[in-house]
Amino acid sequence: MPELRKDPIVGRWVIISTERGKRPTSFKMNEKPAVAGGFCPLCPENEDKTPPEVYALRRDGSKPNTPGWTLRVVSNKFPALVIEGSLKKQAEGMYDKMNGIGAHEVIIETARHGSSLCQLNPKAFEDVLWTYRERIVDLQKDVRFRYVLIFKNHGVEAGASLAHSHSQLIALPIIPKLVMEEMEGSKNYYRYKDRCVFCDIVHQELDDKIRVVVENDDFLAITPFASRSPFEIWLLPKKHSSSFVNISPAEYSSLARIFKDVLSRLEAALEDPPYNFTLHTSPFNELINDYYHWHFEIIPTLSKIAGFEIGSGFYINPTPPEEAATFLKEIK
Amino acid sequence: MPELRKDPIVGRWVIISTERGKRPTSFKMNEKPAVAGGFCPLCPENEDKTPPEVYALRRDGSKPNTPGWTLRVVSNKFPALVIEGSLKKQAEGMYDKMNGIGAHEVIIETARHGSSLCQLNPKAFEDVLWTYRERIVDLQKDVRFRYVLIFKNHGVEAGASLAHSHSQLIALPIIPKLVMEEMEGSKNYYRYKDRCVFCDIVHQELDDKIRVVVENDDFLAITPFASRSPFEIWLLPKKHSSSFVNISPAEYSSLARIFKDVLSRLEAALEDPPYNFTLHTSPFNELINDYYHWHFEIIPTLSKIAGFEIGSGFYINPTPPEEAATFLKEIK
Repeated sequence: MPELRKDPIVGRWVIISTERGKRPTSFKMNEKPAVAGGFCPLCPENEDKTPPEVYALRRDGSKPNTPGWTLRVVSNKFPALVIEGSLKKQAEGMYDKMNGIGAHEVIIETARHGSSLCQLNPKAFEDVLWTYRERIVDLQKDVRFRYVLIFKNHGVEAGASLAHSHSQLIALPIIPKLVMEEMEGSKNYYRYKDRCVFCDIVHQELDDKIRVVVENDDFLAITPFASRSPFEIWLLPKKHSSSFVNISPAEYSSLARIFKDVLSRLEAALEDPPYNFTLHTSPFNELINDYYHWHFEIIPTLSKIAGFEIGSGFYINPTPPEEAATFLKEIK
Repeated sequence: MPELRKDPIVGRWVIISTERGKRPTSFKMNEKPAVAGGFCPLCPENEDKTPPEVYALRRDGSKPNTPGWTLRVVSNKFPALVIEGSLKKQAEGMYDKMNGIGAHEVIIETARHGSSLCQLNPKAFEDVLWTYRERIVDLQKDVRFRYVLIFKNHGVEAGASLAHSHSQLIALPIIPKLVMEEMEGSKNYYRYKDRCVFCDIVHQELDDKIRVVVENDDFLAITPFASRSPFEIWLLPKKHSSSFVNISPAEYSSLARIFKDVLSRLEAALEDPPYNFTLHTSPFNELINDYYHWHFEIIPTLSKIAGFEIGSGFYINPTPPEEAATFLKEIK
């Protein structure tokens, strides 16, 4: 059973995967996971090589766990957390821990091996976003969970261990530290100003224009003022919205179009860079509120100074976001 | 002039290096900096290829900026911050920024190219630690600064762009986010318990033994309970001490011995892994206090999921710290 452990100083929860305990010898640097060619467990015809599907889109009426799907969600075969059991919160001396209870799922975004997320047609991209929503709505019924973390690792350098395009989801009995900080920061801002800090960002960026990558009627993609890394991009709804699950179907369609556009620009500008994105949305216990504004954060993996940043929380960004925005705006 | 910019939601300051603005084309992944062979600007005889030294250890009475040194501190030739100017704190609409004023120095730990920090003899290692102290003491006289961040990137994957063994120092007019969080967390704990949280950690780890890598009379090296990454190590004084600059000369000697031991174990266990370490110590405005306890955090660069972690603040650690400690303890 994996464990969730809390840092006693700053309150950060981490997952300690006690079961897949990596021995030192398994940490050879420069060793690339086998991603190219060969067998792919996420491809059609190999449905029995993954855990059973928890969700799928099948337009041909085909049976679960058989080919015919266009999108498929399965449990992670090597989950960081396990779904069965009770949280069993307890102390270990001065420390706090609980059982590593959670869901860890893989969203297989397309049946086509070799097609990247930004190459999907707008409808297929929308299906991916809608699936994120469906899975969150389903998992928030489980009273043990407080948050669902949706993220994507694209490319080996960004942590993808399988080449077939997929995102991941982790349902957690705790709230990730950065989300908690954003909630607190947004609440403080709201107390002071009576406005959502993200709404203020949207307004200022639309006025200034210098950090806008692209916009449509509903959404805005910006390189944030205090970007931590080169070509960091945030994708936000223009109107206040505290939770990703509460937007309208038309908005998912609009989001898919701008998201695809943003990823395509990144791909063109940086020659298909590895990247990560994460969805930031309100925790289950405060889904509807006036202070927090859901958004996606997209971070290309362009530098190698993670350890320093992890150790200090301090970032040096060699590319001004205004330059990154200008460059991305000019693409195509 | 670089800029310090503050994230309006979580209050994180970042350096935006406006002058060395990297164009997208300069972000070729897998491109390794030229570190092996060839010319080294940090080697003796090349003193004129670095900015003038701000500090050096010379046992032979040789002149500044000539050979004869065993350790040398120079300003970074490509500094992230600049030393001349005023802070000029100002708003940009809703955002906060200030001039990128600060010191950015390189501590050349040895004259010998190819010798790594853990290969230095104990006295030379002690010189490095003492130099950290001397530079902090000097820089804290500058009223513009609030914190000095000391860190080392070892190996290309950890961000080292020169092979010659060196550490870096950044004097800042702000306090890095993680340090601020640790100060706040420690203060909260102290309010609640009337004890330093790090002192409690030291006591529990000495009782439990399972996460102790090595100890001596004055210091303790542990793999922390909620380690973010495999083989993360913290090096702490056993007795309460709020500031790295206030320990005795004998303690620097004792610290050098255990630090060298810890790095040697890491090198042996993981085949000279890339790593980062950062010194965490009290900010200038609260050097002496009962709640915060200085320490080093050492993080080997073993995984590639930085973007996900940067985007979420959430860590999945595949190696339980107890296993890492056992492994490191058994070395040699």
